[in-house]
Amino acid sequence: MIDGRILIGGEIRQRDENFAGIDPSTDTAFPQAFSCANADDVADACALAAEAAESFAALTPDSRAAFLEAIASGIEAIGDTLIVTAMAETGLPRVRLEGERGRTANQMRLFAKELRAGLWLDVTIDPALPDRTPPRPDLRRLNIALGPVAVFGASNFPLAFSVAGGDTASAFAAGCPVVVKGHPGHPGTGELVARAIQQAVADCGLHPGTFSYLPGPANALGSALVADPRIKAVGFTGSRSGGLALAAIAAKRAEPIPVYAEMSAINPVILMPEALKARGAALGTAFVGSLTLGAGQFCTNPGLVIAIDGPELDAFLIAAAEAVSAANPQVMLTPSIRAAYAKGVAALENNDSARLIARGPEGEGHRGTAALFEASAEAFAADAALAEEVFGAASVVIRCKDINAMARAIEGLEGQLTATIHLDAGDQSAAARILPRLAQKTGRVLANGWPTGVEVTWAMVHGGPFPATSDGRTTSVGTLAMQRFLRPVCYQDIPDALLPPAVQAGNPWKLPRRIDGQPEAAA
Amino acid sequence: MIDGRILIGGEIRQRDENFAGIDPSTDTAFPQAFSCANADDVADACALAAEAAESFAALTPDSRAAFLEAIASGIEAIGDTLIVTAMAETGLPRVRLEGERGRTANQMRLFAKELRAGLWLDVTIDPALPDRTPPRPDLRRLNIALGPVAVFGASNFPLAFSVAGGDTASAFAAGCPVVVKGHPGHPGTGELVARAIQQAVADCGLHPGTFSYLPGPANALGSALVADPRIKAVGFTGSRSGGLALAAIAAKRAEPIPVYAEMSAINPVILMPEALKARGAALGTAFVGSLTLGAGQFCTNPGLVIAIDGPELDAFLIAAAEAVSAANPQVMLTPSIRAAYAKGVAALENNDSARLIARGPEGEGHRGTAALFEASAEAFAADAALAEEVFGAASVVIRCKDINAMARAIEGLEGQLTATIHLDAGDQSAAARILPRLAQKTGRVLANGWPTGVEVTWAMVHGGPFPATSDGRTTSVGTLAMQRFLRPVCYQDIPDALLPPAVQAGNPWKLPRRIDGQPEAAA
Repeated sequence: MIDGRILIGGEIRQRDENFAGIDPSTDTAFPQAFSCANADDVADACALAAEAAESFAALTPDSRAAFLEAIASGIEAIGDTLIVTAMAETGLPRVRLEGERGRTANQMRLFAKELRAGLWLDVTIDPALPDRTPPRPDLRRLNIALGPVAVFGASNFPLAFSVAGGDTASAFAAGCPVVVKGHPGHPGTGELVARAIQQAVADCGLHPGTFSYLPGPANALGSALVADPRIKAVGFTGSRSGGLALAAIAAKRAEPIPVYAEMSAINPVILMPEALKARGAALGTAFVGSLTLGAGQFCTNPGLVIAIDGPELDAFLIAAAEAVSAANPQVMLTPSIRAAYAKGVAALENNDSARLIARGPEGEGHRGTAALFEASAEAFAADAALAEEVFGAASVVIRCKDINAMARAIEGLEGQLTATIHLDAGDQSAAARILPRLAQKTGRVLANGWPTGVEVTWAMVHGGPFPATSDGRTTSVGTLAMQRFLRPVCYQDIPDALLPPAVQAGNPWKLPRRIDGQPEAAA
Repeated sequence: MIDGRILIGGEIRQRDENFAGIDPSTDTAFPQAFSCANADDVADACALAAEAAESFAALTPDSRAAFLEAIASGIEAIGDTLIVTAMAETGLPRVRLEGERGRTANQMRLFAKELRAGLWLDVTIDPALPDRTPPRPDLRRLNIALGPVAVFGASNFPLAFSVAGGDTASAFAAGCPVVVKGHPGHPGTGELVARAIQQAVADCGLHPGTFSYLPGPANALGSALVADPRIKAVGFTGSRSGGLALAAIAAKRAEPIPVYAEMSAINPVILMPEALKARGAALGTAFVGSLTLGAGQFCTNPGLVIAIDGPELDAFLIAAAEAVSAANPQVMLTPSIRAAYAKGVAALENNDSARLIARGPEGEGHRGTAALFEASAEAFAADAALAEEVFGAASVVIRCKDINAMARAIEGLEGQLTATIHLDAGDQSAAARILPRLAQKTGRVLANGWPTGVEVTWAMVHGGPFPATSDGRTTSVGTLAMQRFLRPVCYQDIPDALLPPAVQAGNPWKLPRRIDGQPEAAA
């Protein structure tokens, strides 16, 4: 089922230039050779996607929903091969990958449900007022698909943010063909999923250009994809440097296009005094559970703790240090991620502003060990390096003199995906001042929990101001994600038979609509 | 009432450096000196706006609506001074400016109505599922204001797209303080309106930083405003070069911000064969009415006609040429706009690909005269200069061999604000193929009318793919415009008393909400 091919629409291609996946637990290459997609493959995939765009966008919501459901079933039907392949390629454990597979399939099904609900089209009608002076024309607005979308598979969720992940699901839901640039860290996993999508395209009778899959390790591959004039938007999850590079390419095109890059965050955790007093040690232990989950390789990993100095914080730190010291070393996703993590931890160890509190035990080679540091609020304010993301299970605790110093530390933060606050009843008045500032900095604010774990729902926001993402007005998780790939169009006085069905007078798709600003009573 | 001052929050300032408005009918300066705002004024205005942001965003929808209504009444209360001043500064006639004043006030009132309707907050709640494995947290999403917005007054709508125009109205509606960079073409008009807004801020008891007004002719003033780190988004209507320059500044900031620049369009008019046959001459006359309206100084001015060559098109052209030849020369908005128009027309006259069909009569100096050109579809495909916007009453008619040549000409177009199609019953099957392609290129598609005239309603889209705008996912006219200045935030497990009222369990603002994806029954 895995033979290292490139999928261009319905076609399967092989190229002479090859690459191999790497077993991150040994740093040795797997035997399977994977073709490297080249510039011709990019051009062919984009040309096919452009051909497919009109018919795919014109599908009824129900037809497109059925396609998403076919993908979900197809991924499940791969069976244990998918889990075993992903385990070998990423070092992630079975239970995590089984959960991620469920999440990936459920995400497709949630978008299918959202498609059928129809609110995403935002149908808005201002009927003609022929007797007004001057007469008002008939105006009908709906959202239309942007066109072909380039999706970059992410390393840290080989299923849920990769070939059939949130970006692909939301772009398909919006009616956009997708060209995936596969992540070289899990090429076998990627190909299995890509073949399931290719099969779903065929089974649903869609234009084969609806989906293509371009594996390869070269940055030039991704650059060519973003530069192709037929691509109309980009979805990316990865490093800040990677996201900014793609955004720069997109901005330099003759027609600039939106790049939705989810890039970097340290996800501050604010410990309010009463909560810290009541359960400092328990918070310390639970914090390390979130910090070390999945070797810390989550976008929402808590890389910063802000609290008031004192014996309560010491209790938190003692418990956290104990948990870090006991945390099992874990295989990280790729050799380069592990190297970057080691480099980031070493930089903190060599930074005079930071003090190492605890490290996890050294395991056999090729594993990342957790690390916990502390610094003063003054040092944090003076040294931007302390606020840089170290991707992995490393975090810095900032000791603040008082609540005002905490507020200043928050004020100095860059944009974040999440901010967490732990509070008790006695903290509420202080928290009431801090919460609006946290909301200004983040896409999600949560209380008395941990930021790892992102629900795929209607209300979720996985986004936030720059540099958490390149476009803070959006989310890459949850149903709202499909709005990234839509834009509004207004039809004025167009004969009913020529209108898209969504805005025809008879409302053949039975969509929720606004008429003259008023929600229409349900049919 | 006009004394050439800068308005920084509640303060009124004077600077030594001055500029004057120019009477475009004589190219002579008016006697009133206007202070040039400088970098200190920018910094002070932005600091005040940042101070005002939290309280302004936290107002109830009703309170913010009342503020918009106070602005509307304040503009109306200026009385005839506003009309007389704008007539003198812009050369636009009384009836147009009276209409534009009504539109400006009504626009504020429409946003007030939209604020109260509450859909703009997009309140979406996924209640906790404590019994699920793992438990689902409580998730509550709403839209929040981005923060202070820089608005650039446009020359061509001294009221409706200037100090209190669509950008200001929608930013205020979204809960964002506004710093306006006044257009130097109508400084007196700008100051009158700015004072009305300043008064409304005071009358409503708002933080004075909610609004500032920075007059001045220097590009450096606008650049400093966009570069200020406290500004979180930009609204602009003007030239392509101006919009791209601001977008480049915004992209280079430490924190890049969205720039909503409405830039350039030639607004193609497609004449389908049966419509042309049935009423070619009448279409020619009506077309020139739209072309010459307001000296052609509309973003939606029809600068391109695409039709099949033949006697029916000749009939259209004869009538159009006659109307152009009879079109009164009109004072243009500013000497530089008139010069740019003359240069654009001269370039077409000197272009071997284009043939002049008609010019309007030369009037007394300082007026623009209409101009109509024609070119072959082959020449149009080969020479990008024929598709460049000439801001003013100039248009190019493209003669196509057949419907396929028309389709190719459409395929080659850049993004547009509008596309117009004239069709009869017999054109419907051909139009059905063309319409989806027009929708891909534009923000608004209209039939059997003219693109000038943009209704301010719920369904309007005044936007479109690049280069019509810098962000084709948005509109600068209509209620949807406020979404440009909002972003989603999700609150997870936050105690009810600490939540923004919009997402509190008791729904104190009585907002429409989605619960678990389902629209909640109206209270």
